[in-house]
Amino acid sequence: MSARAGIVVTGTEVLTGRVQDRNGPWLADRLLELGVELAHVTICGDRPGDIEAQLRFLAGEGVDLIVTSGGLGPTADDMTVATVAKFCGRDLVVDAALEATIADILKTMMSRSQSWAGADFEAVMAANRKQAMVPVGAEILPPVGTAPGVVVPGSDGQPTVVVLPGPPRELQPMWDKAIATAAVQEALAGRTEFTQATIRMFGLPESALAETLRDGEASIRDFERLEITTCLRRGELEIVTRYEPDAAPVYSDLVTLLSDRHGDQLFSVDGATVDDQVAALLAGRTIATAESCTAGMVAARLTDRAGSSSYVAGGVVSYSNQAKMDLLGVDADLLAAHGAVSEPVAEAMVAGALARFGADTAVAITGIAGPGGGSAEKPVGTVCFSVRLAEGPTVTRTLRLPGDRSDVRERSTTVAMHLLRSILLTAGDAA
Amino acid sequence: MSARAGIVVTGTEVLTGRVQDRNGPWLADRLLELGVELAHVTICGDRPGDIEAQLRFLAGEGVDLIVTSGGLGPTADDMTVATVAKFCGRDLVVDAALEATIADILKTMMSRSQSWAGADFEAVMAANRKQAMVPVGAEILPPVGTAPGVVVPGSDGQPTVVVLPGPPRELQPMWDKAIATAAVQEALAGRTEFTQATIRMFGLPESALAETLRDGEASIRDFERLEITTCLRRGELEIVTRYEPDAAPVYSDLVTLLSDRHGDQLFSVDGATVDDQVAALLAGRTIATAESCTAGMVAARLTDRAGSSSYVAGGVVSYSNQAKMDLLGVDADLLAAHGAVSEPVAEAMVAGALARFGADTAVAITGIAGPGGGSAEKPVGTVCFSVRLAEGPTVTRTLRLPGDRSDVRERSTTVAMHLLRSILLTAGDAA
Repeated sequence: MSARAGIVVTGTEVLTGRVQDRNGPWLADRLLELGVELAHVTICGDRPGDIEAQLRFLAGEGVDLIVTSGGLGPTADDMTVATVAKFCGRDLVVDAALEATIADILKTMMSRSQSWAGADFEAVMAANRKQAMVPVGAEILPPVGTAPGVVVPGSDGQPTVVVLPGPPRELQPMWDKAIATAAVQEALAGRTEFTQATIRMFGLPESALAETLRDGEASIRDFERLEITTCLRRGELEIVTRYEPDAAPVYSDLVTLLSDRHGDQLFSVDGATVDDQVAALLAGRTIATAESCTAGMVAARLTDRAGSSSYVAGGVVSYSNQAKMDLLGVDADLLAAHGAVSEPVAEAMVAGALARFGADTAVAITGIAGPGGGSAEKPVGTVCFSVRLAEGPTVTRTLRLPGDRSDVRERSTTVAMHLLRSILLTAGDAA
Repeated sequence: MSARAGIVVTGTEVLTGRVQDRNGPWLADRLLELGVELAHVTICGDRPGDIEAQLRFLAGEGVDLIVTSGGLGPTADDMTVATVAKFCGRDLVVDAALEATIADILKTMMSRSQSWAGADFEAVMAANRKQAMVPVGAEILPPVGTAPGVVVPGSDGQPTVVVLPGPPRELQPMWDKAIATAAVQEALAGRTEFTQATIRMFGLPESALAETLRDGEASIRDFERLEITTCLRRGELEIVTRYEPDAAPVYSDLVTLLSDRHGDQLFSVDGATVDDQVAALLAGRTIATAESCTAGMVAARLTDRAGSSSYVAGGVVSYSNQAKMDLLGVDADLLAAHGAVSEPVAEAMVAGALARFGADTAVAITGIAGPGGGSAEKPVGTVCFSVRLAEGPTVTRTLRLPGDRSDVRERSTTVAMHLLRSILLTAGDAA
């Protein structure tokens, strides 16, 4: 049996979708790494009654560990610690050492930042004093910002509760300390380790995969020992399988089946994303981008990772026709003859990017993201791509992508990454 | 009393954070527009037991309406309809008309798409047949993709359940039809309308706001009639207040208090984002970007909205020093003397962007996003910004931004938007 956990994300701004929750996914990853089975993530606003209801729900579902995020700030709507204390039947007491730590942090912050000019230390400290209140018997996780976390040990069959702050850059550094506490170690004792593996495909419909998986169920022995989840996202299919280590041969049979049936679409069996693969293939090379409808999204994605400056030269966002001519050297006659969204223009853009940046690899994208600008011949979603290597090959494609403006832009970015991957693989073959 | 609702998001890929949930936030917005109070969002994997536990939890919390998303696909891990039927005590039956509709959709899809080449219609239809199974007495929401939704009326004090598919572009078009059903209308009958208003600030610490709100509690009559939530995100503070319409004078007092205390930081009282404001201020103008560490993120953000092609000329992602020289005309001596991350280089970049794109407005960003590249003098997080209008003013700033690579890049993008807003406002004043 695997230890089970639940995550409670608090904050009206997260509940109402004004802020995207980054903690639930991050905590989910950490729990999976530990071999803990995540059963539920629940989100509620800054209301003690709703927070308490979620804690009761998770305890009732028999989880061994609850992790909460958010609600530790100085404002009156931050009430997670008090609510958890009540739920665990423990009183709240001021921790004098913690109060002194918070006072020191505030003094340093106020002395450094202009935006505090004129603020009264005592008034600010009054607002932050409640952050020094902790449940009796809880272990304190020292603050990264001004908010400390706490670990409240479970008792009488109740789960252990780890209370963490909302800002990811405060929450994340506290995690290792939280996990190291005796209370958490005890809650997770005796867990089964699981292996998790990811296969990625591009360009296969989900129903075709479903058919193959049904065949696998019939043909692969012990298939039911694999817990398979599939997810289609902007043309990419992700197949994540979780299994106990001794079911590795069953998983291996699944990989063989998928490779045999869908070898052309399968691009990763080791969890690597197309971004990882393109980054590796770009080692020793220099890339430049020329983007119209995606307007910098491919450049931003390529530079997302540390160290990308060793192979990214730069790019041009050529949103206007004038920019295509002035910055990339696209011929005015070509634009007039074929229109900005056309394969000849995409090829001229990619050639311009190669030349202007002195790069050996380039990608160009020009398309109609909508909602306006479409025509009968070139409807919204029409996007032309060209990828080119200095040593020769150019690949140019026109696709019609589904969805709204944001979908078309994001999906175009993903398609560009896959075209780059393909052309760079041919370079590898030739070398 | 407001009607209360809960949202159940299913899907192991969402639970484990591999896919960001876009439906919870979107549904939350729709419910708030209807004046429905959203109490809980719960996320679980594709396990019937966990889905059922969440439905029971929400029903136990007394919600009037439950909306589920996901788990309607053809694969075996999609089991939401069957689970909801069981929870509502209703049998599942095949709907013949719906089965015919799904068959038609599949035939069209298979005939149009290359990726289906060689697939057997009967096998695919077998996979999709379970999508035609609906709970007895449920209302069917016609499919947008291949998955229909259903509305299962509440009975005996149980909530009405709206079952929607996971892909946002299938879920969203079904919403209006779901809301129009008699079962949903009945569940939401007698709800109180609420007004919701948003104030935005930039550059104010959360504790300073907390202090002001405590003063408001003491000085503003009926302050408790305002339900205020605050959220700090990359330097922006968002203050959302929900109140019954007759408490409008109380809210007006709050706005006055915040304007008096924090007028310099307050940039929006009408819900408009800095993106909305910059877009409005750019009407009749032309903007170009020159980005180093943000590498296209500002250009991508400016072009996020439909119609931006009327004022965005384009931009240069000048990741390498060579690109700064070749594409933006930054002087090699300037780079050598001050380094790429310096105010003189930012000013040369902004001048280059103005000139090369023939624009009248430009923004340049050069900084150290990390994790490498920092020094004692210029640590990671050091970012230089320059904004300039063709008619004269240039504003240049150097900031030290907190957080990791991704934080620094995103926060730099937000700072750039605020600097653009400020300089464009001075242009408006001069005109």
